[in-house]
Amino acid sequence: MSLLNYFSTQPKSASIAKERLQIIVAHQRRERSSIMSDFLPDLQKELIEVVRKYIEIRDEDVNIRVEQAENYEVLEVNIALPDSSIVKIHTK
Amino acid sequence: MSLLNYFSTQPKSASIAKERLQIIVAHQRRERSSIMSDFLPDLQKELIEVVRKYIEIRDEDVNIRVEQAENYEVLEVNIALPDSSIVKIHTK
Repeated sequence: MSLLNYFSTQPKSASIAKERLQIIVAHQRRERSSIMSDFLPDLQKELIEVVRKYIEIRDEDVNIRVEQAENYEVLEVNIALPDSSIVKIHTK
Repeated sequence: MSLLNYFSTQPKSASIAKERLQIIVAHQRRERSSIMSDFLPDLQKELIEVVRKYIEIRDEDVNIRVEQAENYEVLEVNIALPDSSIVKIHTK
């Protein structure tokens, strides 16, 4: 199944029908302990900051979920884009 | 289905069994026209640069995929972490 299928099979509801942005950082590791786990929180924070440079995001519209399994660690950031959310002018 | 299920049901192969990092940015929009397309190339470049601050990655280990459907746009950055990948010293 492609990721696109995953997203388009998500349940639709009035609130979900808004514009939404999801940022997912998934780390597949071979062992439960990984050197990467140490800096994953910092990395995640920085990735969100990058997206913020392009899209206006309010803190209250951000929902963060972390899932962990033996070999996986998935961070899911769900952002409801307000109707007025206009992409910032990105000057290079 | 949770995202974690999605990731853990991905086909396993020798190459996939490596450590991997995936960064996914999905934009669910109401109309076909997308504001994200305009800055997607810059966004993906910046996301990779952030990861590079933490992990030594070679260009050939980075795989980028963009999927588009009527109401969805998904940017997927797949990074295979080489066995010798030593985490850079991250000084806060």
